Amino acid sequence: MPILNKPALYLPEYIITLEETIELAKREFKDSPNLKKAIDLINNTGVKKRHIIQPIELASLHPGFGYRNAVFEYQSKRLVPDVICQAMNNAEIMPGDISAIIFVSCSGFLMPSLTAWLINKMGLPYNTVQIPIAQLGCAAGGAAINRAKDFIAAHPGSNVLIVSCEFCSLSYQPTDSDIGSLLSDGLFGDAITAAVVTADQGAGLELLKNSSYLIPDTEEWIRYQVKDSGFHFRLDKRVPGTMEPLAPVMTELAAASGWEIDNLDYYIIHAGGPRILDDLCKYLGVAREKFAFSRDTLVNCGNIASSVVFEAYRRMWEAGSLNSGDRGIIAGFGPGISAEMSLSEKR
Amino acid sequence: MPILNKPALYLPEYIITLEETIELAKREFKDSPNLKKAIDLINNTGVKKRHIIQPIELASLHPGFGYRNAVFEYQSKRLVPDVICQAMNNAEIMPGDISAIIFVSCSGFLMPSLTAWLINKMGLPYNTVQIPIAQLGCAAGGAAINRAKDFIAAHPGSNVLIVSCEFCSLSYQPTDSDIGSLLSDGLFGDAITAAVVTADQGAGLELLKNSSYLIPDTEEWIRYQVKDSGFHFRLDKRVPGTMEPLAPVMTELAAASGWEIDNLDYYIIHAGGPRILDDLCKYLGVAREKFAFSRDTLVNCGNIASSVVFEAYRRMWEAGSLNSGDRGIIAGFGPGISAEMSLSEKR
Repeated sequence: MPILNKPALYLPEYIITLEETIELAKREFKDSPNLKKAIDLINNTGVKKRHIIQPIELASLHPGFGYRNAVFEYQSKRLVPDVICQAMNNAEIMPGDISAIIFVSCSGFLMPSLTAWLINKMGLPYNTVQIPIAQLGCAAGGAAINRAKDFIAAHPGSNVLIVSCEFCSLSYQPTDSDIGSLLSDGLFGDAITAAVVTADQGAGLELLKNSSYLIPDTEEWIRYQVKDSGFHFRLDKRVPGTMEPLAPVMTELAAASGWEIDNLDYYIIHAGGPRILDDLCKYLGVAREKFAFSRDTLVNCGNIASSVVFEAYRRMWEAGSLNSGDRGIIAGFGPGISAEMSLSEKR
Repeated sequence: MPILNKPALYLPEYIITLEETIELAKREFKDSPNLKKAIDLINNTGVKKRHIIQPIELASLHPGFGYRNAVFEYQSKRLVPDVICQAMNNAEIMPGDISAIIFVSCSGFLMPSLTAWLINKMGLPYNTVQIPIAQLGCAAGGAAINRAKDFIAAHPGSNVLIVSCEFCSLSYQPTDSDIGSLLSDGLFGDAITAAVVTADQGAGLELLKNSSYLIPDTEEWIRYQVKDSGFHFRLDKRVPGTMEPLAPVMTELAAASGWEIDNLDYYIIHAGGPRILDDLCKYLGVAREKFAFSRDTLVNCGNIASSVVFEAYRRMWEAGSLNSGDRGIIAGFGPGISAEMSLSEKR
């Protein structure tokens, strides 16, 4: 079975702390009737700091959708190649060994996707299959893992490079002061992660059964409203409640392999926000500590969208707590509302 | 092997003829030094008419990127379901039989992708895998076919719904008067196509070996420049010359299955423009008539981006010229410059 190797991470150099976030909110939205409620929610996220691609003095301005997209292109070209090199080192894979590249990002839109530039720049084979995913948001990390496994099933012996490049700060909208927008202004962070899924070599997580799920009639709950000023993130207050219908789906996926969802060795869960993690613990009947790596990602990086699952896995790896034969689940959640889940076992 | 069933097509009710296109260009760009050259090129495309989603009086205005994206959302929700129903009828498949939906479009950006709305609206199973592709442009039709085949290899017995929704007229930019823009203003059309790839049932094209290819160092040749006013299509004059390096790649794919590229029964080729078709004929050593269905698509619809391969295939089917055991190639080309190719055989 395919192996998800240890991911590589890049966090931008500019940092905004919780205190600075709240100061900024008080300054920029001082006349908003939603300010107090939003500050309570931001305090509640548990996010202590976030890394952003530009200093906050620039990130908090809006120079236009076109300029922001140019920043995405410039910064992704500057920063992604090194993260890929690290991920390939982690997997002991050379560029020439790659058969497909899955590039996920919901914070910049390039056509052709950065995949084309990367094939040229990184010396990937010219017959590398390009799978760019722009519209699955935070669920795209889990989706990339699942599509990589599927690709290898269809093309035995191949290796798939996954890159997640999330510059969420480029979607900051200074004119949006509804509670969902103010909360997301204090929640999302920037990061790049990459990982190689190898056909069989490596010591990572062996990818077993995967599945997808759409929670019925929730497509309006997490979405972009596309305006002349770019992507406006819309977050419905009912979103945290979605863990109740998702828990049985995860339970069923585990049960189909004879596993008990409340008795796995690890849980790599999308850290969308604190209530997502708390509620999912509750509905799965899992102790709070079991989600520690997802929670640490949230505390130290904010919600880094499709990169969360890779960073939580990397933290777990670095902590040295993974043992051969350990069994767990990877789950990404995002707009749709969609879940992309995979059972896995440490090689 | 998976079967690509007969596609369904929707062409919008508003039509713009070659004569109207040229009149419009003369009126809108009368001061452009590029006008005469552009008119020559447009005359040369061979496109007799195109279908567009709005009357030309509205399509030629630019009410803003946000409004245009809203038109995309409204019109796709209004029109796509019927095309899907026809495609499912063609494949004798019910909504509950679908395991994955691949939605391709480069002319509108929704997050979540329309896939989420369609799962709810069309009664697809809630565990349908969503594969939205926005960044492969015209090559996305071929890519969708190849990823559908891969998905079925990874999930035996499943059926994949492909939807291509291309409203290219929504990317018309009245302020762009370079030759590439003027040419594309006269070349691209709107269409929706859909097709079901079944695991093994049906009488369509059995999908055999597939492959992808990126022409080295051409990522700037076909691209969107993203501005506050949306997607600006940039077309390099070197594009038609790309068939020379692509022909040997197609020859090699055929040879790997023991087939001779110049001796296939059918060719379903992306009709990017007349020179694409003419040059590819020449470099493959294939008679001009062999590309008749691609050429007819171009003449009657313009370049309908990722929908071309489905419409050319549908025309071939309707013409009744396909016989059991016939062998051919499907090839989509697009930004990157990327090619997505598949060998197939009529069941």
